[in-house]
Amino acid sequence: MRLPDDLERNCGYLLSHLGFRSRSRFTEAIARLGIRPAHYGILSVLMESGPITQAELAETLRLDSGWLVGLLDQLEAEGLVVRAADPVDRRRHAVSLTPAGKRRRQQAARIGRRVEDELLQSLEPEEREELRRLLRRLWLQH
Amino acid sequence: MRLPDDLERNCGYLLSHLGFRSRSRFTEAIARLGIRPAHYGILSVLMESGPITQAELAETLRLDSGWLVGLLDQLEAEGLVVRAADPVDRRRHAVSLTPAGKRRRQQAARIGRRVEDELLQSLEPEEREELRRLLRRLWLQH
Repeated sequence: MRLPDDLERNCGYLLSHLGFRSRSRFTEAIARLGIRPAHYGILSVLMESGPITQAELAETLRLDSGWLVGLLDQLEAEGLVVRAADPVDRRRHAVSLTPAGKRRRQQAARIGRRVEDELLQSLEPEEREELRRLLRRLWLQH
Repeated sequence: MRLPDDLERNCGYLLSHLGFRSRSRFTEAIARLGIRPAHYGILSVLMESGPITQAELAETLRLDSGWLVGLLDQLEAEGLVVRAADPVDRRRHAVSLTPAGKRRRQQAARIGRRVEDELLQSLEPEEREELRRLLRRLWLQH
């Protein structure tokens, strides 16, 4: 039986379901790397930013800072990131990637692209680009 | 600081975040009606289908049937749905909406449209239509 129109035509409903599906698949696919999607987000930001503070990381990823601390503890225990006192202000700590963290991020990025390809397989390349553009607009709006 | 490209350009990542945001807002907005999004999905399907079995409901909403049973118990306790033996096969039970269930669904549908409007406010009407079309394609693919 088909989904009723008020659900199937509501972008909020569709986003919520597709988002959940996408998250589950990525979670499963990177489990063998010993990390979860939130860890991947952190590795990915650090790869581009170089050493940054926890506050900057939390803001960029829009993560709760208490939760971020726990995630960083896990990544540090795995040897993927290090926290070191900022040479300018020793009370502040800067987080950075280790070489193992960089390799792990590369592996996870490849998996992420594969999961996205599977997710979008019914769309033509130009439709994927259009979807990407619209979703980025929504992401930036908030 | 900006999100790195491999996140900001990954539809999986964007869907997952926007889906979570959309779900949280709808959950908050309908809390005063005493229902959650999964309840709304059930009310909405029943509104269109008339009395149907639990198995049909689970399949339409792609919900786990054990979880569905619990949701139906809650809706029945609130007087929003009833389960009655199917007159054709008395071992089967058909679920249907009560008049109170219909009213509750109407109220929730109005709230759902408002939440969607807020979510999509940065898009033009034709862009919203395009996003809807692309998301439906992805929904139907799986």
